[in-house]
Amino acid sequence: MAPVGPRSGDAIFSSIDRVNAELFTLTYGAIVRQLLTDLEDVDEVNKQLDQMGYNIGIRLIDEFLAKSGVSRCVDFKETAEMIAKVGFKMFLGVTASVSSWDADGTCCSIILEDNPLVDFVELPDTCQGLYYCNILSGVIRGALEMVSMKTEVTWTRDALRGDDAYELQVKLLKQVAEEYPYKDDE
Amino acid sequence: MAPVGPRSGDAIFSSIDRVNAELFTLTYGAIVRQLLTDLEDVDEVNKQLDQMGYNIGIRLIDEFLAKSGVSRCVDFKETAEMIAKVGFKMFLGVTASVSSWDADGTCCSIILEDNPLVDFVELPDTCQGLYYCNILSGVIRGALEMVSMKTEVTWTRDALRGDDAYELQVKLLKQVAEEYPYKDDE
Repeated sequence: MAPVGPRSGDAIFSSIDRVNAELFTLTYGAIVRQLLTDLEDVDEVNKQLDQMGYNIGIRLIDEFLAKSGVSRCVDFKETAEMIAKVGFKMFLGVTASVSSWDADGTCCSIILEDNPLVDFVELPDTCQGLYYCNILSGVIRGALEMVSMKTEVTWTRDALRGDDAYELQVKLLKQVAEEYPYKDDE
Repeated sequence: MAPVGPRSGDAIFSSIDRVNAELFTLTYGAIVRQLLTDLEDVDEVNKQLDQMGYNIGIRLIDEFLAKSGVSRCVDFKETAEMIAKVGFKMFLGVTASVSSWDADGTCCSIILEDNPLVDFVELPDTCQGLYYCNILSGVIRGALEMVSMKTEVTWTRDALRGDDAYELQVKLLKQVAEEYPYKDDE
């Protein structure tokens, strides 16, 4: 179980270094715009954002574990709650909720109540296939992989595409037994 | 003069929406890496980062003016102090100092005491010409242009390149009389 006093997302968020959210939003917007210009293909941009997120997630998990006091979750259900309640609060300052669990507890939805990435954003008609926030799905996928969970993370609702919320489906594909990163004979 | 009670950078910073600095740092790192991969030329990456910063600066100035209570600075000297003392604090949570004024008060240095963009960053040998933080010079240039000051902003010291600090030279090229953005007959 999430161990010796995990700290609340609020408490962590207020105690760590932060930068202005608008600067972050505009900087993220600049990345997306840059990728659209360079790659000229919305699907490629989606992939690239996801990959960038993945690269961020595999590093951000260290900060999460170090600052949150969370050491290990018993199961995927608890993991999803940690992401929603502690992770989103700690990194983006927003809260999220978990719902729509499947019967065997390996697939759920994370719904964002607020999404700082999309402030001031409107997608032009030429970008209709874009998953603007795809970096977030990549971050979750990368971070979970570092704690031995292979997942698939996809947007099921996206307010920029006309839906009424931002909703990520997180599906556990495989839970890998933990190994030391290097074998003894290496 | 900076008018009816401009607020301190600290006060503003604590009252606005913020995100985790490490997330910002890693996200910025992902941009730079992406640009290096796509453009394959360090000088082009420098240009592109500057341009992205410019695009951010021309929007961020609105947030600055709205939240800081600063309305107009009497001269370039005061403007530089505002950027260093209020701007850097408000957006990046760090303080900066102004020095090395030239005789006619149109050129100075802004020295960063701390630079959240470069946490965990080391430049490989292949990136020796890179101005990793070039987005910042672009932001300042863009923001100042929106308040009618054409400037040239260049890095004169960069710790990632072996210097002992981060120092930006800000040179006022031209102070443009303010105009309405659209002419009456348009």
